Amino acid sequence: MKARRILFYFAAMAAATLFSSAAIASGADPLPSWNDGNAKQSIIQFVKDVTDKAGLEYVPSEARIATFDNDGTLWSEQPLYFQFFFALDRVKLLAPQHPEWKTTEPFASLLKGDLESALKGGEKSILEIIMATHAGMSTTEFEQIVRDWITTAKHPKTGKLYTEMVFQPMLELLAYLRANGFKTFIVSGGGIEFMRPWAESVYGIPPEQIVGSSIKTRFEMREDGPVLLREAKLDFIDDKEGKPVGINSHIGRRPIAAFGNSDGDLQMLQWTTAGEGRRFALLVHHTDAEREWAYGRDSHIGKLDKALDEAGTAGWTVVNMKDDWKVIYPPAQ
Amino acid sequence: MKARRILFYFAAMAAATLFSSAAIASGADPLPSWNDGNAKQSIIQFVKDVTDKAGLEYVPSEARIATFDNDGTLWSEQPLYFQFFFALDRVKLLAPQHPEWKTTEPFASLLKGDLESALKGGEKSILEIIMATHAGMSTTEFEQIVRDWITTAKHPKTGKLYTEMVFQPMLELLAYLRANGFKTFIVSGGGIEFMRPWAESVYGIPPEQIVGSSIKTRFEMREDGPVLLREAKLDFIDDKEGKPVGINSHIGRRPIAAFGNSDGDLQMLQWTTAGEGRRFALLVHHTDAEREWAYGRDSHIGKLDKALDEAGTAGWTVVNMKDDWKVIYPPAQ
Repeated sequence: MKARRILFYFAAMAAATLFSSAAIASGADPLPSWNDGNAKQSIIQFVKDVTDKAGLEYVPSEARIATFDNDGTLWSEQPLYFQFFFALDRVKLLAPQHPEWKTTEPFASLLKGDLESALKGGEKSILEIIMATHAGMSTTEFEQIVRDWITTAKHPKTGKLYTEMVFQPMLELLAYLRANGFKTFIVSGGGIEFMRPWAESVYGIPPEQIVGSSIKTRFEMREDGPVLLREAKLDFIDDKEGKPVGINSHIGRRPIAAFGNSDGDLQMLQWTTAGEGRRFALLVHHTDAEREWAYGRDSHIGKLDKALDEAGTAGWTVVNMKDDWKVIYPPAQ
Repeated sequence: MKARRILFYFAAMAAATLFSSAAIASGADPLPSWNDGNAKQSIIQFVKDVTDKAGLEYVPSEARIATFDNDGTLWSEQPLYFQFFFALDRVKLLAPQHPEWKTTEPFASLLKGDLESALKGGEKSILEIIMATHAGMSTTEFEQIVRDWITTAKHPKTGKLYTEMVFQPMLELLAYLRANGFKTFIVSGGGIEFMRPWAESVYGIPPEQIVGSSIKTRFEMREDGPVLLREAKLDFIDDKEGKPVGINSHIGRRPIAAFGNSDGDLQMLQWTTAGEGRRFALLVHHTDAEREWAYGRDSHIGKLDKALDEAGTAGWTVVNMKDDWKVIYPPAQ
């Protein structure tokens, strides 16, 4: 375990170093998977403005905070949030230990593969599924459960590992910002401890720069040492109005750039752009039914409606996935 | 405001750069305010061990997380936590707007200068004082209130600014660890938003690396833009069992080194040292009645009893302030 984690670090460091030095040395295009167009130009112009020491819009490196939503912004989120697939796999795995689930909703329907009936109960059902699959173990145990799943589970439609369904253009953007002195954070409605085990190797974003939803944990001193136990109690929902709250709690200063894809990101973009000086906000619009998915104003997952309207009036950058991105996912290894 | 903040950043950056390059270039003693002895030697040995790439105890830079308690560890905490002086000053300032305080405890006693009676109500009284002085404004307003206070208020006994009562040996230790690839965090029972406005310029620790106690905030969209409102509701107490919980929530990985001074830090040190591989734990024991204060097992503030016992059995480093530190506070500017 430890050796593998150390290897991860080295690989991530080496990749980051290679990428940034190569791009800087050669003057190569730092965003090769982005087609030329307004979206790409607006990103490059923003980075130029805030890094130009002689310019009026210069921002010192310490204040170059950029926050990224995860689901739908850094990786896909259809037909269900990937964390929900994790929960469903956990329900199947745990079912033998819970014979009562055969006759208890939402588990009974889930186990029959009838997702629609399982989710009839709305938020209450989702919460029951989350608590049954995410709580009741130590943080160390949960980390291992996530690692095991994320390295083996495959997406039902693409057959890819979920971490192969991250957006190549966004990986380039993350690296480009970091090469220009930005500190990149994830601010996601997803579970903070669901993302931390793999985000560093996949996105180059370390655990301490991840903000997300959480359940409560409790410290307990056991005979063989201390543990943090994951309790079946909601702690924080990092979505909509919760995102600026989570940013304030974890980061403690206002980002100068924020990246999202849905109405769940609206308040984060509002909070970011309301700060003084040069600011940047970007929405990824999923318009590519062929290479990914096309959805927006009416979608149950990743609804993009109010935020798209506000992007129009406020002049935020909107990525049209179909036109702006040369590729969606990283090339197969 | 903005210009001042930018100046702060530059000063902090310049100082950090100068310090580390000078120390490295000259091979000078990185901890000049520490007397030679077990405490200093144990720190230097630990840093050597985890940074020696050829050694068995090497830790990659990303995992070199060090957490520091604040009150009593990085600055003094007598005769009262400094944040409590802030609250008392706020009560006096706000009293004209609260005529009812003249006849309501704990405020009536406070305004008469009778602290003992004011605190008879214990935790409930303290909480009332905190909420009356720390809530009911936006995060931006509170930040300004703290900045104004911290740059002007003087300690009743020493007559110094509170930020002049930070421990010079600990400033050197923070810089030494950072020069060796560590990421330094504060993990304090004090208010997270009370520390953030000044910790970067004083300790070189940015807002996103500060963990502390908090009250709830709420996002609100107003006509002139969004605000985060500080509500009179407890969110999280970052003390005792809360410290590992706060570390897990904000940092998301276990520190390899932890520094404290009281029983409030015991669980943080237990959690840190229970991790695999080389670990380090240090307690500052206040033994210098002449230059600072001497207290410990029976103190109401900064009680050091169980943690001192555990330091003995677990082999943690204990700083005897009187013997181990050449100076307490930084030289007057």
